[in-house]
Amino acid sequence: MRKNVIREILRVVSQPGMMSLAGGIPAPETFPVEELYRINETVLDRYGAAALQYDLTEGFAPFREALVGYLTQKGISADAENLLVFNGSQSVLDTLGKILITPGDVIALESPSYLGAISAFSSYTPEYVSIETDDDGIVPASLERVLDQQPIKFLYLVTTFQNPTGRTLSVQRRREVAEIIKAKNALVIEDDPYGDLRFRGQPVPALHAFAPENTVYVSTLSKIFAPGLRLGFCVAPPLIREWLYRAKQGADLHSNTYAQALATEYICGGFIERQVPKIIELYRPRQEAMLAALERHMPGEYRWIKPEGGMFIWVEGPADVDAEQIYWKAVEQKVAFVPGKYFYINPEDGLPTMRLNFTRVDEATIEAAIETLAGVVRQIDGD
Amino acid sequence: MRKNVIREILRVVSQPGMMSLAGGIPAPETFPVEELYRINETVLDRYGAAALQYDLTEGFAPFREALVGYLTQKGISADAENLLVFNGSQSVLDTLGKILITPGDVIALESPSYLGAISAFSSYTPEYVSIETDDDGIVPASLERVLDQQPIKFLYLVTTFQNPTGRTLSVQRRREVAEIIKAKNALVIEDDPYGDLRFRGQPVPALHAFAPENTVYVSTLSKIFAPGLRLGFCVAPPLIREWLYRAKQGADLHSNTYAQALATEYICGGFIERQVPKIIELYRPRQEAMLAALERHMPGEYRWIKPEGGMFIWVEGPADVDAEQIYWKAVEQKVAFVPGKYFYINPEDGLPTMRLNFTRVDEATIEAAIETLAGVVRQIDGD
Repeated sequence: MRKNVIREILRVVSQPGMMSLAGGIPAPETFPVEELYRINETVLDRYGAAALQYDLTEGFAPFREALVGYLTQKGISADAENLLVFNGSQSVLDTLGKILITPGDVIALESPSYLGAISAFSSYTPEYVSIETDDDGIVPASLERVLDQQPIKFLYLVTTFQNPTGRTLSVQRRREVAEIIKAKNALVIEDDPYGDLRFRGQPVPALHAFAPENTVYVSTLSKIFAPGLRLGFCVAPPLIREWLYRAKQGADLHSNTYAQALATEYICGGFIERQVPKIIELYRPRQEAMLAALERHMPGEYRWIKPEGGMFIWVEGPADVDAEQIYWKAVEQKVAFVPGKYFYINPEDGLPTMRLNFTRVDEATIEAAIETLAGVVRQIDGD
Repeated sequence: MRKNVIREILRVVSQPGMMSLAGGIPAPETFPVEELYRINETVLDRYGAAALQYDLTEGFAPFREALVGYLTQKGISADAENLLVFNGSQSVLDTLGKILITPGDVIALESPSYLGAISAFSSYTPEYVSIETDDDGIVPASLERVLDQQPIKFLYLVTTFQNPTGRTLSVQRRREVAEIIKAKNALVIEDDPYGDLRFRGQPVPALHAFAPENTVYVSTLSKIFAPGLRLGFCVAPPLIREWLYRAKQGADLHSNTYAQALATEYICGGFIERQVPKIIELYRPRQEAMLAALERHMPGEYRWIKPEGGMFIWVEGPADVDAEQIYWKAVEQKVAFVPGKYFYINPEDGLPTMRLNFTRVDEATIEAAIETLAGVVRQIDGD
């Protein structure tokens, strides 16, 4: 239902001349198209028919080895045995829903939360409960309260540069959350698609590093290689890994061998080390342009945080504003974004919030779009 | 459980020196590795970043257009609107199970049936009922009886060169089955992975052609391009297509864009027309070698049909034989196959049957393997 409203809202985005801050997908300029001519050749030379054949359910062995190295650099201790490769991280989330959720189970979500995860879990008909958040991510006291109030099947979090808010769970909070999770013997699904898109500041260790036995770490190459290759993966405790393996075997046998071989060469051939800085150098000025334009144009009663990376900026207006009203007026002036209320479980929450994406539009367009948006905001405030 | 027994049985297949007739996968020599150097270049030249970006849940538009043309040649009337692309046909079967099966629903299967389908459906906990088969496929009177006895959610069939038996539902039978299905307003899932692997005789129209409103047609490019690319698809009546679409959106967003772009060029660039005859010219002599060796070596009380294509030959021994006994003795002499009983729902059925695959081994190995197998058979018959 909610999904349909959003689809309706996003339909206008494809109108000609629209300046869209509504998307959530990478800029196509970030894909290593030129490099892929060479990567393809190397893959065909090196693996030949093996890159085109049926393969293991858990994933192409050289790719899992490559991922172990990649994850080690990020402080996540994995081995090729506890890694599983899926058809995008959406498929990890769906399969976790399939093996873990019995109808009526309660799932804890940070509020607001990533819609794709809610969509994946909802087909298994759980109930949801929200955990309060602030600029440092979920509030530990709220988490503790929720875990005490009822049995929670799992907690789902995007820990770094969250979608929709851009927020990062601080290191101190990660420690506290890990302690609570371990003390209550709870399970966390840590989704980390954006962690590598860091423009400033120091990398933060994954929550998985503080509580590996209670965490399923989920990530993807969609934001640092190419989303069309559908390369998601997870590191899971042994029992959950075994259940995921069995479910995946029945559901789709295995993930695309050829795409995994391309990704192996992308990682091991050193392409990733050159490409990620290029992606950051494209996105950073766009984010800076958006922050500067917000500063310049938005009325004083609007606030936003300045994430150190990711793809989104989250803007909050005064409590009496409904950002959907802003949305419809902005669209008339050819600016689109996503009203933030759609990312909340409780339909009364998040009315004055907006999710602004900066990855698909250049700096000049961002400046023009934010100036227009601010004009609409002032007009609505004046009504 | 059954799956684990088979895994155990197949484990020995990878022992050095094993002559394996146990597999069910294409020969790697059939993959167009050389052609893929060029196909990759064309795809990057033509689609660039679009082949690497997020894409539509229903599938890459040029690929769906290409499939419409490919299916038209096979007598299946589809349009780009009622086609859906999945991560292999296994994922079509899993998603059909997800949207259609309520626990306890009864699914009708031909007996014996394809194990991968049973594995996909079983996670949604249906009951199964078997339909009798003979050399022309399912027996219409048995189908009618089963449909009259209880509500059947759907009937699942591999209509051409079936796995495990190699049998093809005859044209006359297709007409009769279609009439029954329409009269009872029943739903058939027609799985057709092997139809293009025809060595002799005339192509048979899909069951879908006789009852399109009651049939979900499922197929794959795994046997005529490359299974590692995981390119399955289906043509479904509008309501089921909509349910599949929604389920897939939540489950994995969309299938691999790049693989679909490769397949588009494989079909539209004329590669498929040159490659399929090459695949047939590899498999046909292997099948002929197996049929000749069976004729030469197997005792008179064993029988098999001569399929006009596909990947398997199905051998039936006298009623008092248990082919698993043959299996363990054959393995000692370095010949592996799959005992046919594992393809039946009822554990007492199919004891004297064997599934022999001829696609992964050359003619000389086939001759040696069948001679050895026949020796074991005689020895067991003599015990």
